[in-house]
Amino acid sequence: MPVAGPVPEPENVPGSLLLREIREQPAALTRLLEHRDEYASVARLARERGVSIVRLVGHGSSDNAASYGVYAFGLLPGWTAFRDSISLSVYYGAEVDLRDSCVVALSQSGRTPDVLEYVERAQARGAFTIALTNESDSPLAESADAVLPLAAGPELGIAATKTYTNQVAALALLAAYSAEAGDRVADGVGEVTQLLADLLPVLERQLSEVAVALAFVGRMFVIGRGPEFATAREISLKLLETCRVGAAPLTATDFAHGPVAALDGLFPVWAIAADDPLFPAVRDAAARAHKAGATLLASGTEAASIPDADYYVPVPKPALPLLAPLLSVVPGQVLAWALAQAKGLDPDHPNGLTKVTLAR
Amino acid sequence: MPVAGPVPEPENVPGSLLLREIREQPAALTRLLEHRDEYASVARLARERGVSIVRLVGHGSSDNAASYGVYAFGLLPGWTAFRDSISLSVYYGAEVDLRDSCVVALSQSGRTPDVLEYVERAQARGAFTIALTNESDSPLAESADAVLPLAAGPELGIAATKTYTNQVAALALLAAYSAEAGDRVADGVGEVTQLLADLLPVLERQLSEVAVALAFVGRMFVIGRGPEFATAREISLKLLETCRVGAAPLTATDFAHGPVAALDGLFPVWAIAADDPLFPAVRDAAARAHKAGATLLASGTEAASIPDADYYVPVPKPALPLLAPLLSVVPGQVLAWALAQAKGLDPDHPNGLTKVTLAR
Repeated sequence: MPVAGPVPEPENVPGSLLLREIREQPAALTRLLEHRDEYASVARLARERGVSIVRLVGHGSSDNAASYGVYAFGLLPGWTAFRDSISLSVYYGAEVDLRDSCVVALSQSGRTPDVLEYVERAQARGAFTIALTNESDSPLAESADAVLPLAAGPELGIAATKTYTNQVAALALLAAYSAEAGDRVADGVGEVTQLLADLLPVLERQLSEVAVALAFVGRMFVIGRGPEFATAREISLKLLETCRVGAAPLTATDFAHGPVAALDGLFPVWAIAADDPLFPAVRDAAARAHKAGATLLASGTEAASIPDADYYVPVPKPALPLLAPLLSVVPGQVLAWALAQAKGLDPDHPNGLTKVTLAR
Repeated sequence: MPVAGPVPEPENVPGSLLLREIREQPAALTRLLEHRDEYASVARLARERGVSIVRLVGHGSSDNAASYGVYAFGLLPGWTAFRDSISLSVYYGAEVDLRDSCVVALSQSGRTPDVLEYVERAQARGAFTIALTNESDSPLAESADAVLPLAAGPELGIAATKTYTNQVAALALLAAYSAEAGDRVADGVGEVTQLLADLLPVLERQLSEVAVALAFVGRMFVIGRGPEFATAREISLKLLETCRVGAAPLTATDFAHGPVAALDGLFPVWAIAADDPLFPAVRDAAARAHKAGATLLASGTEAASIPDADYYVPVPKPALPLLAPLLSVVPGQVLAWALAQAKGLDPDHPNGLTKVTLAR
């Protein structure tokens, strides 16, 4: 159910679909948790198969969630996880031995053609394949060895929101059950649903004001590192697809290795700060952006510790720091909605996009 | 030695350093080939160690070259290769078993702090570590189990050029010797040096004209897929660091999954087309960019097969298609030099950058 916010529930106006699905996220996460036993079972299967390598595949927001999965699997069971190249296997026919591998294929619709083909090829090469999808009767679900429900409910908006957060939570759950720490993480996701429900009305109000000031924005860097790099990628994609902002995600280190030179007063920087070992890197990147004259927006659980930001959009700290990306992406979703309004764009009908992308 | 071009050899004017090092690339590749036996020996060591996973680490241009390595190792020896997360190991202390892994650490200077620390931790976890560096007496070279010389000669320009192409060629050589196909690829690199020497004067002349027309550019998408995704990343970085263009690299599929919606007549798209199984994906992405009203620049070995481009910047086809990225990156380097001139910027002194980046 939608969470009531201070902004009136919009009906059939530009952006109403996007906002409705942003607001549904606490409910969508709660639905996901009802399937925790399935996550525990599939994790057990993966352990029994002796999996030590996790290959994450997906496009768009699914690929952004995969960036989070790299950290979830690396930190919880200590498995090697990476975003595998779909093209290497599907288009170039690379012959790689996959017997120690588990594939986690992320596709909201379960119909992304080359993700499906990747899974079929990976099975033939010996991988254990898991489909993580919103559509349990999709071709992807039928092909994979195991299916995990995303349980986000039908997503009608072109820009993914609740399916992204459910993918992040699903990867956290699968990684946690693989490390036999599933219940603790499931409880943590439960805590996040409440934090998120409380946060949404605050963000809607605050970012509606910020959006007016940022209506000039044509390009932006979004900086995150570690698990929050996924957040930087997803926020960039939201701004690209709904607001025509040429947003590019960068790790704090990438930023220092060249892009910092492109900044000026019309090239804002969004820094996502977490209370973790990489905070100093993000703080230093933000300081360089400020020095270059860029407008600086600081978000994340540790936003308040970034000096000299022009805008602060903090999110609360969950008990498990690894779950912070479930909260820290939401300012990007809400700003995408608010900035589209400020720029006179309809985020429910972006130019040239459809819900299911069949492009290869 | 610099290759003489139709543009007079510049001396101490903005961009003279960048142009000199761009022109040195054929000579730098030739120097690399003198070390082919060392590449063969290290590849033999990796095979003897039973390596099946290659972890590529680096920042900036080195990380872009690593994107190429994913394909070189996947296609030649059929090994799993990926750009590993430095932060997961160095900052979060993830405990991953690396006994089947080979690390290829890319650092021009051999002094990048967290690449060095990654190598030390990976060794402790059982990995076979290879330093690929321009500085054979650097801390990185001292730490690694094996050292491979990049042999590019001193690089003084802030924007990496000849070290990038030598890294790409070095990864091709190492992957090829790992597949016992080293001599064929070494000969292929030899052919490329000549193609490149012939190409440079043509590009300098052509792109000096194109740059004037593109002087308005503030943002750009650079599209490539497969081995040319590395090229898209590196071209974007050159434009960011020397020309203040908010350039973002995208695979053809990423592009279709959202960013296409951001395009308009002031948001040009650069499409890198290769004669390979992903050509149709790049052609379709270019067609969507054209339809959205974007100025379209087509480059790569198959540039001429992209319809409706506003600018065509083809490069010749080498005998080995996998070596095309050695040529296809050069239009990006030369445009960075020419566009900086057109915009009145000094690409030898970008804002806020130094040659060795110590930022974490």
